[in-house]
Amino acid sequence: MNSSMTSTGDGPRATRPSFADVLSAAERLAGKAVVTPLLESPALNAQVGGRVLIKPEVLQRTGSFKFRGAYNRISMIPEAARRSGVVAYSSGNHAQGVAAAAALLGVPATIVMPADAPQIKIANTRGYGATVELYERASESREARAEQIAAETGATIVRPYDDPGIMAGQGTCGLEIARQAAQLNAPLDMLLVCCGGGGLTSGCAIAMAELSPRTKVYAVEPEGFDDTRRSLEGGTRVANEPGQQSFCDALLSPTPGELTFSVNRELLAGGIAVSDAEVAAAMAFAFTTLKLVVEPGGAVCLAALLAGKVNARGKTLALTLSGGNVDPGTHAEAVAAGIAIIAEARPRLS
Amino acid sequence: MNSSMTSTGDGPRATRPSFADVLSAAERLAGKAVVTPLLESPALNAQVGGRVLIKPEVLQRTGSFKFRGAYNRISMIPEAARRSGVVAYSSGNHAQGVAAAAALLGVPATIVMPADAPQIKIANTRGYGATVELYERASESREARAEQIAAETGATIVRPYDDPGIMAGQGTCGLEIARQAAQLNAPLDMLLVCCGGGGLTSGCAIAMAELSPRTKVYAVEPEGFDDTRRSLEGGTRVANEPGQQSFCDALLSPTPGELTFSVNRELLAGGIAVSDAEVAAAMAFAFTTLKLVVEPGGAVCLAALLAGKVNARGKTLALTLSGGNVDPGTHAEAVAAGIAIIAEARPRLS
Repeated sequence: MNSSMTSTGDGPRATRPSFADVLSAAERLAGKAVVTPLLESPALNAQVGGRVLIKPEVLQRTGSFKFRGAYNRISMIPEAARRSGVVAYSSGNHAQGVAAAAALLGVPATIVMPADAPQIKIANTRGYGATVELYERASESREARAEQIAAETGATIVRPYDDPGIMAGQGTCGLEIARQAAQLNAPLDMLLVCCGGGGLTSGCAIAMAELSPRTKVYAVEPEGFDDTRRSLEGGTRVANEPGQQSFCDALLSPTPGELTFSVNRELLAGGIAVSDAEVAAAMAFAFTTLKLVVEPGGAVCLAALLAGKVNARGKTLALTLSGGNVDPGTHAEAVAAGIAIIAEARPRLS
Repeated sequence: MNSSMTSTGDGPRATRPSFADVLSAAERLAGKAVVTPLLESPALNAQVGGRVLIKPEVLQRTGSFKFRGAYNRISMIPEAARRSGVVAYSSGNHAQGVAAAAALLGVPATIVMPADAPQIKIANTRGYGATVELYERASESREARAEQIAAETGATIVRPYDDPGIMAGQGTCGLEIARQAAQLNAPLDMLLVCCGGGGLTSGCAIAMAELSPRTKVYAVEPEGFDDTRRSLEGGTRVANEPGQQSFCDALLSPTPGELTFSVNRELLAGGIAVSDAEVAAAMAFAFTTLKLVVEPGGAVCLAALLAGKVNARGKTLALTLSGGNVDPGTHAEAVAAGIAIIAEARPRLS
């Protein structure tokens, strides 16, 4: 039994996915997920004095990388169990990924979402044919609600990150980055990954460890939700302080996943935290210069780079833009705020 | 003397560029222009019932395809003449293309721009180091002002479209589309090209005629500025009626170019016109689903497709998103309007 198999039931504690699991995920995703390109912006390169390769998962099916893990994980559910459906809880991107993957695989899906999730994420999740159950973020437990649904219906829970099938699926993003950078003859000094629970980060780290072990992989998080950064520093999982605020709705996980952190502790070079203002400036840069729509949580790596928290001078690095599902009003406000922040910073920078 | 050479001076009337000129342009642009990817959106494919390959020139250096023609044309200016600089007139995208290309080639550039051009286009043109001279669209002739500057300084005029060097440069976009579609094993039934003066359209048509002669190439224009569509129908160049309005600022040329139309008349399958409302809906679709920032003039082909003016069912087609230089406020307004238009149309479409 390979490691992936342990995640398909409720049996023994799941084990970490291997690079072979990432390759298997890539086979399952072939023709289903978009092989997103690795983009390069001469303007961005000039600004940071290095070579930056951008992995725009905003172009992925459902507008974020989450489709990769969801499709891989649901594909691994035995045929008989698929009839009972899947259930997931998510603030939005995992919800859409699971809904779209389930629809493609003909599996009924129920998604438990916070009532205050971005409208675009709720509407899209319903649009993919899933049943959406809204809960109150402050007073209810989404995990408990999902487990109740699973107990009542026999549905399989598709967890957002702490699952080897999910991690291996997200790892296909890192697999593509490594292969595409190699095709460009661009050995990567660094890879920056947007980090919530750590599914994308750990999956990409597994791929890079195999294909480009010299690349230093960093998790980038919002300030106040830098649980992975602080856990890496201390060597053990710590939670975020209660009451923190950030508009990076996709990255508000309370603590690193058990499985994801066991990978990240071993493979990451460190963590970086960015402020909402730095994220807004990055969203504005993405709008004005890259011409990409990036949601707050998807812009944290670009924010770290533009804010000078990573020294790119003379270096080659890749970064993920992990999602682009943002309400138009939120986007317009962030871009306007970001343009003002950039204009204010310019005299100081020059 | 090959055909390209005739465009470098003020000698005899320039002749049409050949496919060989497009190949030469591609050599000059190698490593300078971005080879933009050919993107595919499962959501868009599902919506139109066909396979749509998207050429996002919003990702091009300077945010539009215009860099291609400008860099190619300026590269063709003899070394001695380059010292006297270049002068161009443009509402914005050609301005930025010329400014950036001139800066890369170390050639001084003066750009004559309308005072009411989008602020982002004026600011970016200055940002690339060009001298910007603003003129009043209603009362002054930009051509006359540019010619005056050229006469005074000896600068070479870099025309926006009616020049074989410009056309060949824009043709590299079509060259890439043909090659990328072939790599995807996706023979193109149709190619839709955003059309103002016809530089991109004619250049792409020359490339497709050589590499994919079965592909029907269409020029897409804003309603009221569908001079190429009407000229193709009548077989002779006609001008737009005075007093027309459209927010597609990049596509407001008064009449097809002489040289561009001589190519387009022979190689195009026809023209299509779209309304501003259809363009806003396309900009909204690009925001919500493609996650790309597209300016009004860059969205006309997507608008034609989404409005059902092209029957894509069972077909494979490519379309250009020719530029993404739009002020944030204009973009946010268009996206909001477009979302409302899409929501209103939905019951009727389903």
